[in-house]
Amino acid sequence: MSESPSSAAPVKYLEENAERRLAELFDFLRIPSVSAKSEHRDDLKDAATWLSDRMTDAGLDTEIIPTDGHPVVLGEWRDAGPDAPTLLIYGHYDVQPPEPLELWTAPAFEPDIRDGRVYARGSADDKGQLYMHVKAIEAHLVANGTLPLNVVVIAEGEEEVGSPNLLPFVKAHRDRLAADAVVISDSAMFDKGQPSLLFSLRGLAYAEVRVRAAKGDLHSGAYGGAVPNPAAILSRMIATLHDVTGRIAIDGFYDDVIEWGEEIRDEIRSLSFDEERFREGVGVPALSGEVGWSVLERLWIRPTCEINGLLSGWTGEGAKTVLPAEAMAKISFRLVPDQDPVRVIEQLTVHLESVAPDGVTLEVKALHGGRPWKANPEGPLFDAAATALEEAFGTAPVRVGEGGSIPIVVEFEEILDCPALLVGFALPGCNMHAPDEWFGLDEFHTGTAALVRLYEELGTALR
Amino acid sequence: MSESPSSAAPVKYLEENAERRLAELFDFLRIPSVSAKSEHRDDLKDAATWLSDRMTDAGLDTEIIPTDGHPVVLGEWRDAGPDAPTLLIYGHYDVQPPEPLELWTAPAFEPDIRDGRVYARGSADDKGQLYMHVKAIEAHLVANGTLPLNVVVIAEGEEEVGSPNLLPFVKAHRDRLAADAVVISDSAMFDKGQPSLLFSLRGLAYAEVRVRAAKGDLHSGAYGGAVPNPAAILSRMIATLHDVTGRIAIDGFYDDVIEWGEEIRDEIRSLSFDEERFREGVGVPALSGEVGWSVLERLWIRPTCEINGLLSGWTGEGAKTVLPAEAMAKISFRLVPDQDPVRVIEQLTVHLESVAPDGVTLEVKALHGGRPWKANPEGPLFDAAATALEEAFGTAPVRVGEGGSIPIVVEFEEILDCPALLVGFALPGCNMHAPDEWFGLDEFHTGTAALVRLYEELGTALR
Repeated sequence: MSESPSSAAPVKYLEENAERRLAELFDFLRIPSVSAKSEHRDDLKDAATWLSDRMTDAGLDTEIIPTDGHPVVLGEWRDAGPDAPTLLIYGHYDVQPPEPLELWTAPAFEPDIRDGRVYARGSADDKGQLYMHVKAIEAHLVANGTLPLNVVVIAEGEEEVGSPNLLPFVKAHRDRLAADAVVISDSAMFDKGQPSLLFSLRGLAYAEVRVRAAKGDLHSGAYGGAVPNPAAILSRMIATLHDVTGRIAIDGFYDDVIEWGEEIRDEIRSLSFDEERFREGVGVPALSGEVGWSVLERLWIRPTCEINGLLSGWTGEGAKTVLPAEAMAKISFRLVPDQDPVRVIEQLTVHLESVAPDGVTLEVKALHGGRPWKANPEGPLFDAAATALEEAFGTAPVRVGEGGSIPIVVEFEEILDCPALLVGFALPGCNMHAPDEWFGLDEFHTGTAALVRLYEELGTALR
Repeated sequence: MSESPSSAAPVKYLEENAERRLAELFDFLRIPSVSAKSEHRDDLKDAATWLSDRMTDAGLDTEIIPTDGHPVVLGEWRDAGPDAPTLLIYGHYDVQPPEPLELWTAPAFEPDIRDGRVYARGSADDKGQLYMHVKAIEAHLVANGTLPLNVVVIAEGEEEVGSPNLLPFVKAHRDRLAADAVVISDSAMFDKGQPSLLFSLRGLAYAEVRVRAAKGDLHSGAYGGAVPNPAAILSRMIATLHDVTGRIAIDGFYDDVIEWGEEIRDEIRSLSFDEERFREGVGVPALSGEVGWSVLERLWIRPTCEINGLLSGWTGEGAKTVLPAEAMAKISFRLVPDQDPVRVIEQLTVHLESVAPDGVTLEVKALHGGRPWKANPEGPLFDAAATALEEAFGTAPVRVGEGGSIPIVVEFEEILDCPALLVGFALPGCNMHAPDEWFGLDEFHTGTAALVRLYEELGTALR
């Protein structure tokens, strides 16, 4: 594999500055920028300022732009000229709450290196990966004095609370954000040493369902047998959501599900995935899911219907003989292309109305949603990324799906009319959203070098 | 209807002391003696002490007897002599948890009079009714200096948690509790102005069911579709508990259900019961239940299976995309003669095991149970009670069933070899076990006067 001509010096620069780079990352990770909690508002501001300063140091023209929530940090370098392609890089500087604190080996905001890993909240999701882009840009600009293409970095501070202000921001700044591609590093590799490119993200449709019967809780002896029991009724309604093969039994639910070609299915099957090891990791007696699909297919390319919560009647210690007035379920769907969250919640509502008996009233409240995403995993963008990853890691990337959702990806593609590339460097088991989140040192260094090469390749491929 | 000779003075005494009597009841109701919660241990102790003091004031020899749980309060007056009959009076001083607190119009433990009703937890079940006996005894002893028969009052503090220590207590004190009849006021009248005598009580079998899958909560995107969802699975398991006719679909469940004769079914049908008014009172769009039985039959002489509680995953505000590790249901059965609670929980366990899929572990924990009861609704005991009730209320009583359970009734009858008389003064819709529990002031006063007359009648009838 030949070295891309203009990446040699930046990669050398990265190697020579490895220690400083890590020290800076630690400073970033020390800021507890927890967007879900209002008491961290100043920390979010500090994180935005810190990031903006480092982006300026890297050679970007940087601006902190207020929103109705936490600010957006925007960095631009457009000296490649109007004829060169432009790459938009998206990431987020906010992090999940660290709780439960007692389950962390070292404090969440005191980065700690153990076994070749940086342990800290945000190390993988997403400060570490966002910072890799900043450093790859710096490497080009310092070592070569230029970049192979124009870059715009957009970093938000509200990803972990559903990006409420990002979509309006992107729409309002559509021209300034215009690009030939958008790249996002906020996901994981399939395995250590195995670089990966995402071909899909599942979407999300989330609803809260309430079944109400009597006007108040009743004595289950005095009324039981003659008054509808909403907990039993909701359970029976939930039982109708799947058929015995694990398929979702809602009329029209699969209408918009695209069939993935045999090529992708073959590629998924060819991945070295140990279902037994996965089962043991999860700690269940047996895995489950839709008949006819492998575990990876169930996670990546098939939609789901999950019960995320149930609440009714007496849930405390011991026996309370109450006939509940109401029962609640949180029901969500992971969607695959081309399902639409609004339509799915409508289908759910129609279904639940059709199975609800006379004695109850039903309320279905849509809570939030996001559309699924499907890459075109071929063509110059993917090829360029594959070349860069193979050069850096010594192994060609595999194409993988992602069961979770990043709703903004489809929006970027549509509003900016450009394709998205999702290339992440976290490793499986890195505890995103959980205690002891970590990011591998190898992946931090090799991944940054891969990004240097990625810009080089895209400078040509997107032209 | 003539006044029983020795009841005139006590009834007058009651009338003269109505205000003080109510004030004392309020003091009793203010003690939050919630037996289901360990943090109320001292409140139970306070309630026992308070009750014991009032029983002493009434003229009883009183003793607080410790058990492995909350104490038993025992009061005795045996000066009618060995040739006079002895009446055992049973009640309980513990109450149901008041939750959900926000649905109470006034706080649960701050008694409030509205529209001729005392609103407070325990006003109907059972502090109010137990206290009526204490006051009826006091009325005889103060106004007449004597009682028409020996009385023993036994008040426990664990009825709402299944009376775990009462049966051993009754067995251990069999001689001291020996009586010619046991009377219990812990039930309701058929309607306002319509005194009632119970011919049956349903039994109870209560279990907590847990379904466990993964070793911890998981991200519903990263794992959803391949890992068993215990909330969905528990719902499907619950859905198998009834068939489409409302019959309980557990093997062997009806084996021990006796067929009631046409006489009782005719008598039930002859009661003036307005199902539409009942439906409106409960506030449901439609009633429900086992096909082929009237509402009163469903409530009194048919068994049920109720879901009393459900809990799993995220139940707070908004959307959390969690795949829960565990789901819990509280499931209880009301039983009819001659079903046995232990056998029913065994049948439930076998059923749930048979429908549980591979990917989960199941735990069924029996919480408490009680056997159903069937009276012999004829003979001197019933006749005496009918006379007393007709004198006090001006209307002859009707025979009614009771959907709730008082497990100790069968045990009293068997261990003490004496018949039980169940005469209660709550009114339909009094919210026992629910927010805004209330007891009618008319029923409190007229009912206490009826008890004064009942003792008088039984003094002769049981001789």
